[in-house]
Amino acid sequence: MSDPTDPAILEPDAIECFDEPARRAVYDAIALRRDVRHFRPDADLDEEVLTRLLAAAHAAPSVGLSQRWRFVVVRDRARRARIRDSFLRVRAQEAERFEPERRAAYLALRLEGIVDAPVNVCVAVDERDRGPILGTTAQPETVRASAYGAVQNLWLAARAEGIGVGWVSIVEPAVLRDELGLPVGVEPVAYLCVGRPVAFRQRSMLEEAGWGRRLPLEAVVHRERFVDEPAEP
Amino acid sequence: MSDPTDPAILEPDAIECFDEPARRAVYDAIALRRDVRHFRPDADLDEEVLTRLLAAAHAAPSVGLSQRWRFVVVRDRARRARIRDSFLRVRAQEAERFEPERRAAYLALRLEGIVDAPVNVCVAVDERDRGPILGTTAQPETVRASAYGAVQNLWLAARAEGIGVGWVSIVEPAVLRDELGLPVGVEPVAYLCVGRPVAFRQRSMLEEAGWGRRLPLEAVVHRERFVDEPAEP
Repeated sequence: MSDPTDPAILEPDAIECFDEPARRAVYDAIALRRDVRHFRPDADLDEEVLTRLLAAAHAAPSVGLSQRWRFVVVRDRARRARIRDSFLRVRAQEAERFEPERRAAYLALRLEGIVDAPVNVCVAVDERDRGPILGTTAQPETVRASAYGAVQNLWLAARAEGIGVGWVSIVEPAVLRDELGLPVGVEPVAYLCVGRPVAFRQRSMLEEAGWGRRLPLEAVVHRERFVDEPAEP
Repeated sequence: MSDPTDPAILEPDAIECFDEPARRAVYDAIALRRDVRHFRPDADLDEEVLTRLLAAAHAAPSVGLSQRWRFVVVRDRARRARIRDSFLRVRAQEAERFEPERRAAYLALRLEGIVDAPVNVCVAVDERDRGPILGTTAQPETVRASAYGAVQNLWLAARAEGIGVGWVSIVEPAVLRDELGLPVGVEPVAYLCVGRPVAFRQRSMLEEAGWGRRLPLEAVVHRERFVDEPAEP
């Protein structure tokens, strides 16, 4: 059978090349992207910019071209305040999981900008059955995986625009479901705060605050076979 | 308690701005990225370039700075041929899920470049318990979500480098586990083929082949509350 996807039909010069400054810009966006929790309370987010960010998310790859991501844009302040109440509850629970010294450090961290940011975006995945999806038979979780790639696209586009994004995972999915009217089978997978940042940090906030350290690249790369790291002393 | 993460300590001009060409380059990488399945069999992938791509992946955000992603670089051709055998098995199973006409279209699609590409990268997540991770109490799946953001970073950096990446989800996780020596609790979440592409397509291969259509942005964006789309006629 002939291959309808043979790229020989394409022009051989169809490999558009990025010149050195363009390549550098892509790496800069990746390196300078930060999880932002401090937003300028006086600055709104233009709908035009927001649309570009959402379009960047929607340009992500999706398994079998499934595009099951859904983006709920939340501006209503009262709704965001109720979602922030959920953050406070989960934070209190989570704090209990740490030993006292680390707990104090945890509670001193600023971990969200739900109400300070002008816009929140909940990313959800429509997992309701509408027939088989190419590529999901052995790995059904790739439908959801595609939505996380969309989040990263949005995050990098935002960095290039000078817009900050903060991902809040310290929030109850049931509250998001209720506040945003998500039906059964449409699962919230990421909750983002979006707006003008006070600053982009030099390093990750958790590094700067001494909460954790970035691993060297060698610690996460294996060759041919996975080799377990030695146990920490 | 004082906030150790107050950005007021940062210089007010710490918001590095991307100029218009740099912003354009980031959006170009997002728009021109393709799932590549046709690789130039004569072209190797320099270790230097591969290291830049892996570093881009490792620069992704991770919940609580957990960095639980692991990258297994596979060059051994016999190993890749065995992994491709798994692809063939799953493809045969998956084909059965489609009605006859669509099944023929499915089987005519080229869906992987496992052996043709010089390098494969299996992204795995180390989910073994080493104590509580900040941000995972209400949403434990965010540890795995972080790895998918790393995949997208790698994919976009590759596009800027003129390198093609294809994600193969039509493969048995158990085979990856066995071939790559992944211990229990280290889960394979993405299998990537990486190398010089024959071309970057104008549109997604599945669109070009008529398998599916890209949804308009309005179809995936909701305001304040999720509104179910009308049932297809």
